[in-house]
Amino acid sequence: MTRTRHPAATILAFFVTALILAIAGLRPLAAQEVLPSWNDTPAKSRIVDFVKATVAEGGEGYVPPEDRIAVFDNDGTLWCEQPYYIQLGFMLDRVKTLAPQHPEWKTKEPFKSILDGDMKGIAKGGEMGVVELGMATHAGMTSDQFNKIVSDWFAAAKHPKTGKLYTEMTYQPMRELLDYLRANGFETYIVSGGGVEFMRPVTQKLYGIPPQQVVGSTIATQYAIVDDVPVLKRLPKVDFVDDGPGKPVGINKFIGRKPVFVAGNSDGDYEMLRWTTSGKSPSFAMIVHHTDGDREYAYDRQSSVGKLDKALDEAVRRNWLVIDMKNDWKKVFAFEQ
Amino acid sequence: MTRTRHPAATILAFFVTALILAIAGLRPLAAQEVLPSWNDTPAKSRIVDFVKATVAEGGEGYVPPEDRIAVFDNDGTLWCEQPYYIQLGFMLDRVKTLAPQHPEWKTKEPFKSILDGDMKGIAKGGEMGVVELGMATHAGMTSDQFNKIVSDWFAAAKHPKTGKLYTEMTYQPMRELLDYLRANGFETYIVSGGGVEFMRPVTQKLYGIPPQQVVGSTIATQYAIVDDVPVLKRLPKVDFVDDGPGKPVGINKFIGRKPVFVAGNSDGDYEMLRWTTSGKSPSFAMIVHHTDGDREYAYDRQSSVGKLDKALDEAVRRNWLVIDMKNDWKKVFAFEQ
Repeated sequence: MTRTRHPAATILAFFVTALILAIAGLRPLAAQEVLPSWNDTPAKSRIVDFVKATVAEGGEGYVPPEDRIAVFDNDGTLWCEQPYYIQLGFMLDRVKTLAPQHPEWKTKEPFKSILDGDMKGIAKGGEMGVVELGMATHAGMTSDQFNKIVSDWFAAAKHPKTGKLYTEMTYQPMRELLDYLRANGFETYIVSGGGVEFMRPVTQKLYGIPPQQVVGSTIATQYAIVDDVPVLKRLPKVDFVDDGPGKPVGINKFIGRKPVFVAGNSDGDYEMLRWTTSGKSPSFAMIVHHTDGDREYAYDRQSSVGKLDKALDEAVRRNWLVIDMKNDWKKVFAFEQ
Repeated sequence: MTRTRHPAATILAFFVTALILAIAGLRPLAAQEVLPSWNDTPAKSRIVDFVKATVAEGGEGYVPPEDRIAVFDNDGTLWCEQPYYIQLGFMLDRVKTLAPQHPEWKTKEPFKSILDGDMKGIAKGGEMGVVELGMATHAGMTSDQFNKIVSDWFAAAKHPKTGKLYTEMTYQPMRELLDYLRANGFETYIVSGGGVEFMRPVTQKLYGIPPQQVVGSTIATQYAIVDDVPVLKRLPKVDFVDDGPGKPVGINKFIGRKPVFVAGNSDGDYEMLRWTTSGKSPSFAMIVHHTDGDREYAYDRQSSVGKLDKALDEAVRRNWLVIDMKNDWKKVFAFEQ
């Protein structure tokens, strides 16, 4: 037996179904739209509340669109910096690649230790050793050539612990935060101690950040004509170190205005956080605290890479948001599970 | 006697009138939209043809939106640089303002000549004199303080010949060109030998170019805490000279990619023009040639300010567009007539 319904009931049922579907469709969407890899902890709320206030015209927290500048440290804030900086991984591989052309490296530090696979030996050369290592691997070619070397390296080089490509070692929650800020009219910048020409070939793909929004350390370059073609030669000379007190200097030099939103993870970001939050206008500072030894690494005050000590104390005093990676993030890397 | 019309005729008349008005309204608009202060000379056509090609997907001249970077010299390209650079005008006024605090300037060059109003005497100090003058007027304060000093100066300082505010001494056709490029998806940058912190306070208002899109010469700055407030101190030390071969270096450092469109007016722009047009992908270079002694100034090969000699010869060889201000521009300044 079939029962027939009144046409009005059918129409009503249709609209009710449509309404239910619409609500069902909308609700998870609304929840998913904003920072889906973040747990619903106070950290997420603080970020969302701040951003909402910046776009609420007439409100106390309103920030005009042209002032919506957000700056992010890179190593340890946007991508993994353990067990060593990704750029150091590049240097190590580069030394191995170039070794045949440098027989003297077999007996000269820090090259000898690198070729012997002795990571502890590398550190023995101290700061000068690192500078020499940087110059040997980052200078002596044109900017275009270096761009290609870096791009090729990123296409294949893998993280020593996870075995994933370095380009997969970015923090998914931070990528979502970048998207979220841009969706609310922010210009997002990287402000890193890393080399600017080392980052630029990959930042658009990894973070949606174009080359002109990458601030970093620079090597001296020189304009020259080679075979009637103008090139920029990379010289073995440091031009600018964008770290610690150099970060506000770098921001002022490259961007020319004080940011509204800043994210870092180490004492090297302290001055940038302090400067950004020093005015009377709305500002927001956050520190990514590496608390998750299972999914990533757990380190702070005692770490030789990404030491977080002074800035962690100051965060409490100055009400900077400290992200607890273990509890505030649903996942760390996109490749998880 | 009155004649009545058929309602259909009235309606028809209404639509015909509306159509005529619409067409009449649209046509002058379409013609005015693009570079209205430019005469309909081949120069304008070349610019428009190039820009149209950059946005025509699938065409040979197409440029993806992310690569649409346009760079403009400032002095003599976007604003007047005669009888002396506007920034020199700032220095002269600044010396007069600061003189009471510097009794030693009464006998010390180049300050003595400035205070005596002897413009020729200033030049006698040579390059070192100019550097000393720059440091005495541009360093010794914080970046925020300097920003205010510059903003206040621009609010009142006037051009020695026209008596107009310096901020009115911009070239109307070039402002339209900036707008036109932006309307076609270009990011517009200033790349000037002038001081970056001297230009940034006014570029948004004058050209629609925000601080982060101004590349220029920089003074060394230092992060410091003063009365528990972080500041950036301007030190009496040149950090970077963004002129001549420094321009490609500056573009690579700040922007990190080769531009597609470049405009300059002097030999100081030569390397930037050469570098921009050196690739195989579409590019466009133009030189503003100062040929109008009536409306502005006429100068090129023999001028001490904005000398245009080598780049003028090279323009022919390399097919760079040379703008003849007298014939290609309907007006030079917005305040004309």
